[in-house]
Amino acid sequence: MKSTKELIAFLQEAVNHLEFKSQPAGLYEPLAYTMSLGGKRVRPLLCLMAYNLYKEDVETALNPALGIELFHNFTLLHDDVMDRSFMRRGKACVHVKWDENTAILSGDALQVVAYQYVAQAPAAVLPACLELFSRTALEVCEGQSYDMLFETKKDVGEEEYLEMIRLKTAVLLACSLKMGAILAGASEEDAQHLYDFGIHIGVAFQIKDDLLDVWGDPAIFGKAIGGDIMCNKKTFLLIHALKNADDKQRESLLHYITSDDIDRAEKVQAVTALYEAVGVKEECEAKMLYHQQLAMDALDALSVSEEKTVHLRELAESMMKRQM
Amino acid sequence: MKSTKELIAFLQEAVNHLEFKSQPAGLYEPLAYTMSLGGKRVRPLLCLMAYNLYKEDVETALNPALGIELFHNFTLLHDDVMDRSFMRRGKACVHVKWDENTAILSGDALQVVAYQYVAQAPAAVLPACLELFSRTALEVCEGQSYDMLFETKKDVGEEEYLEMIRLKTAVLLACSLKMGAILAGASEEDAQHLYDFGIHIGVAFQIKDDLLDVWGDPAIFGKAIGGDIMCNKKTFLLIHALKNADDKQRESLLHYITSDDIDRAEKVQAVTALYEAVGVKEECEAKMLYHQQLAMDALDALSVSEEKTVHLRELAESMMKRQM
Repeated sequence: MKSTKELIAFLQEAVNHLEFKSQPAGLYEPLAYTMSLGGKRVRPLLCLMAYNLYKEDVETALNPALGIELFHNFTLLHDDVMDRSFMRRGKACVHVKWDENTAILSGDALQVVAYQYVAQAPAAVLPACLELFSRTALEVCEGQSYDMLFETKKDVGEEEYLEMIRLKTAVLLACSLKMGAILAGASEEDAQHLYDFGIHIGVAFQIKDDLLDVWGDPAIFGKAIGGDIMCNKKTFLLIHALKNADDKQRESLLHYITSDDIDRAEKVQAVTALYEAVGVKEECEAKMLYHQQLAMDALDALSVSEEKTVHLRELAESMMKRQM
Repeated sequence: MKSTKELIAFLQEAVNHLEFKSQPAGLYEPLAYTMSLGGKRVRPLLCLMAYNLYKEDVETALNPALGIELFHNFTLLHDDVMDRSFMRRGKACVHVKWDENTAILSGDALQVVAYQYVAQAPAAVLPACLELFSRTALEVCEGQSYDMLFETKKDVGEEEYLEMIRLKTAVLLACSLKMGAILAGASEEDAQHLYDFGIHIGVAFQIKDDLLDVWGDPAIFGKAIGGDIMCNKKTFLLIHALKNADDKQRESLLHYITSDDIDRAEKVQAVTALYEAVGVKEECEAKMLYHQQLAMDALDALSVSEEKTVHLRELAESMMKRQM
């Protein structure tokens, strides 16, 4: 069984050697650019780790794993157009560096390339891999659709929010793990447990993201604290704060999240203080730990020996303890 | 063997019964809307006709054929965003009826749905079908990329133009036919001949399109004559006209195609007169007939009896004789 470090190195090498056609440059250069921006490659890593629970020849799972990473980058490319973002991982987004049409069309091509890689799964499991991948791809679109809808929706409930992040973030992590299991010929039960593990770490990961945006260490976080607060984003924290607040606190919170002309420092400080006053930090941390526990329970249910699951447990823990 | 009419009815029924998920409505309603706009469904028809040269159970080829039609409609949806078009088949484009983000995201989902249908090819031929489909999908993106590039490129040569329409239009027709052949278990040679047939009818079809835009019968054509002239589009006609023209004619032509403030009737009349003076109508008609002949030669080379190819020949002829 390979160490996480070995798998990351193996993956990084493969990502660095991804090759795209060269012409027309206006179509393919943005693909190479997008894939060169980096990222933790956590999705293909999860795919290889799941595969490696059952089989040693991880190279069999490499291309489908890369397909998922390519797909993930395609979604970022198009999301950045839809969200009017300017920067991605410290560099200009494709629609900024080139233009919007280039971003749309290159994204379309990147989705096709993602399918080309997934389609290199061995023929015996190809239909199952494709079925999982396409279903997940649609769910990711659904998540983005709900996310955009929630921007203008006044009352987003906790359940709706959780369903949105399940679709937008968690299902692709879950798909990565399940595809590793399918490629390795694992039982349907194990494949489902790994899928569930992915869902729960995905949800916990997103709650952690919301927490870091408010209480992260600015020196480590890598971007300005309070970004979600400044753009009035409906995060898990805000939804809980609005629920927990008394009338006066709610009025104050609504004042801040519907005003765009308040000084950044003042707004971030005031909303953070309100969050702390109504106890959402503790509540959200508890919710995160709850999903982390469910993730560990899913690993406990696997048919493989517990020691084999150590790497996945460590990865899940590092994702929750991260400061950036 | 089924008649073309029977196959069209079979396909239309299937397209009418396509079902999409219902939620989120903002994601899936545009898909149903797009597929309800109509169209001649010529790509899935070609797929079924090719299949039917070898086998009778055309329902086996239905889902992959629908996948190609879904993909074609996805490209129209995103092309309309990129080209800033307002109308498609007499109705508002998705990005007009909804908004641009909806069009981008629904298009992404439609491409996934297209793959879901193609992936229903029998397991034995699934890798070959996917390989063909993905390669073609990338080529279609390449065609759109060149088409956008040519809008601002000053000197587009005939070869470049032909390569662009091969990619943008012809390869998907060719893919439809070849996929029918692969699904039916035809020989590689036959599959390639059918592919070539598709390429040549595609190129001829596009030249016909350019001709109709200038010399079509306004009462039949369905849209205003001279649309390409008004938006200074680099068509096969314009490329040939610039090549054939003497200095004075070229100067006049360049004057018209670089001016946006000339009265429509005057501009269309003047450019049409220049086209006629330099003989491009005859030249382009000859080029169209040349590709039509190559298409027929490809059918001649098939291993099936000539009488079986009658439907394909008739379809190709009707595509060239069409007035709209």
